[in-house]
Amino acid sequence: MSKPHIALIGMGLIGSSLGHALKKHDLAAHISGYARSPETRARALQLGFVDSVHDSAADASKGADIVFFNTPLSSIKPLAEEIIPVLDDHAILTDVGSVKKTVLDELTPLLQGRIHLVPGHPIAGTELSGPDAGFAELFDGRWCILTPSGDTSLIAVEEIAKLWRAMGSEVEFMEAGHHDLVLAITSHLPHLIAYNIVGTAAQLESDTRRDVIKYSASGFRDFTRIAASDPVMWRDIFIQNKEAVLEMLGRFSEDLTALQRAIRHGDGEYLENIFTTTRSIRKSVVEAGQDTDQPNFGRDQTPKN
Amino acid sequence: MSKPHIALIGMGLIGSSLGHALKKHDLAAHISGYARSPETRARALQLGFVDSVHDSAADASKGADIVFFNTPLSSIKPLAEEIIPVLDDHAILTDVGSVKKTVLDELTPLLQGRIHLVPGHPIAGTELSGPDAGFAELFDGRWCILTPSGDTSLIAVEEIAKLWRAMGSEVEFMEAGHHDLVLAITSHLPHLIAYNIVGTAAQLESDTRRDVIKYSASGFRDFTRIAASDPVMWRDIFIQNKEAVLEMLGRFSEDLTALQRAIRHGDGEYLENIFTTTRSIRKSVVEAGQDTDQPNFGRDQTPKN
Repeated sequence: MSKPHIALIGMGLIGSSLGHALKKHDLAAHISGYARSPETRARALQLGFVDSVHDSAADASKGADIVFFNTPLSSIKPLAEEIIPVLDDHAILTDVGSVKKTVLDELTPLLQGRIHLVPGHPIAGTELSGPDAGFAELFDGRWCILTPSGDTSLIAVEEIAKLWRAMGSEVEFMEAGHHDLVLAITSHLPHLIAYNIVGTAAQLESDTRRDVIKYSASGFRDFTRIAASDPVMWRDIFIQNKEAVLEMLGRFSEDLTALQRAIRHGDGEYLENIFTTTRSIRKSVVEAGQDTDQPNFGRDQTPKN
Repeated sequence: MSKPHIALIGMGLIGSSLGHALKKHDLAAHISGYARSPETRARALQLGFVDSVHDSAADASKGADIVFFNTPLSSIKPLAEEIIPVLDDHAILTDVGSVKKTVLDELTPLLQGRIHLVPGHPIAGTELSGPDAGFAELFDGRWCILTPSGDTSLIAVEEIAKLWRAMGSEVEFMEAGHHDLVLAITSHLPHLIAYNIVGTAAQLESDTRRDVIKYSASGFRDFTRIAASDPVMWRDIFIQNKEAVLEMLGRFSEDLTALQRAIRHGDGEYLENIFTTTRSIRKSVVEAGQDTDQPNFGRDQTPKN
């Protein structure tokens, strides 16, 4: 394929970052964009990460070689139903959603044997949303997981993998169900827990709540970052990855009950053992290059030498 | 009081940071130090944040005007019993522990009417431990909460408050029980939850566990930082603040069960409402100057402009 025409359906944090990255690395002949809100479309043109914007997803996708869905999971199927009839043969649909099995299951029956589907998930993001939140380096040095079904055209798969690699990502292939299980524990459960603890704090009497914010540097603030993530996007993730999330949540709750019991009975040995194990996991995360080794993520007054 | 002789009992992250800060701001006539391990004592002298080291807490405290306990909570009472007999009249005991009511309750009966007690808690720290982890700026711009009992000498209280202010901290006074309740939700529960989720992940089958570390940037890594905190220190915190922690944990678990139920029944509206509330708490934390406004705590490839 020579340089493709790429359509971005959804131009929030991920969509706008895709636009910036595609432009930076000169990967597209044309980038067309669609967002539901006229403000986002106008802003996208102004920021210049798309070449054209359109007030329907179908218009934005006409003539596109590759269509990226960068919208909440629940909107992907209706958008695909709207777009597929106008697509040329051999066009490729892909997405950036955090749950992969539902995308595969919902879109596969719509492909008419003439459209390719290569579901994807870049392990990258921030807690910010909207077209102004994007930047070209978001995917640089991060993983991107692709979960095509076994009978997908190799050419289509390679086309999408090539794009991600050109934007600086390292591409991995995974079975969609395994992806959803791994992400349930690495991403979905942490978000649920963070949303929950911040929600619990929000319900305290106002005096105590004020103190919680004031002294949040003692731990709480770390959770507020994750709990500031996009509400609609996360609503859809939990509903679409229900089974894996409930499974991991079940394990988490059992373990928490055991800790609770140890605290109630003053079982210091049990607590110390668990807390010692978890320390070594941090070491593995830093050694795997997945986080900074700076104390406090490097955000505070830390030694500058 | 002219420049005091200060004894540091415990020279880990907080003790060594105190030494560095006291030296930087020239706040002590002499700084003596004690640590249980000979290696820590030798390292403290080498790093130069103390003027002398001693192989017993009593020796380190002889002639001191102010004694700082910077050790795990369970060791404070036995150390105080050892130190108090050798202290001069009007010496001041203070500490940096994360639970305040037990310190007040355990030490008050030991004071012999001639020693002052001003319990304290700097809201500052990192996930690192040991004498090499300390730095002079750790307390700069952070809160320090003091929880003296109502009948404590004002002069003694002001002496300790003055020291913290000179190290850059903003001092707040609080009733010890209220401190323990506020910290249960801002600090102790977040640590418990982080330890727990990382512990849950540690128990997964090895294939999945490897993937969890590999893709930890999707949320999990934030929790591993907190779960790398000192195991013995945190063991003691949960045991000494049992009641408040169990109370907050009860609320957390109820709320989590409600989220779990919403996921199981596909109640998207409930999820979206909770997730929208929590977003505004992040805003308050950043506005209160308690966290960076940089996406991802500023640690990744974020826009440099």
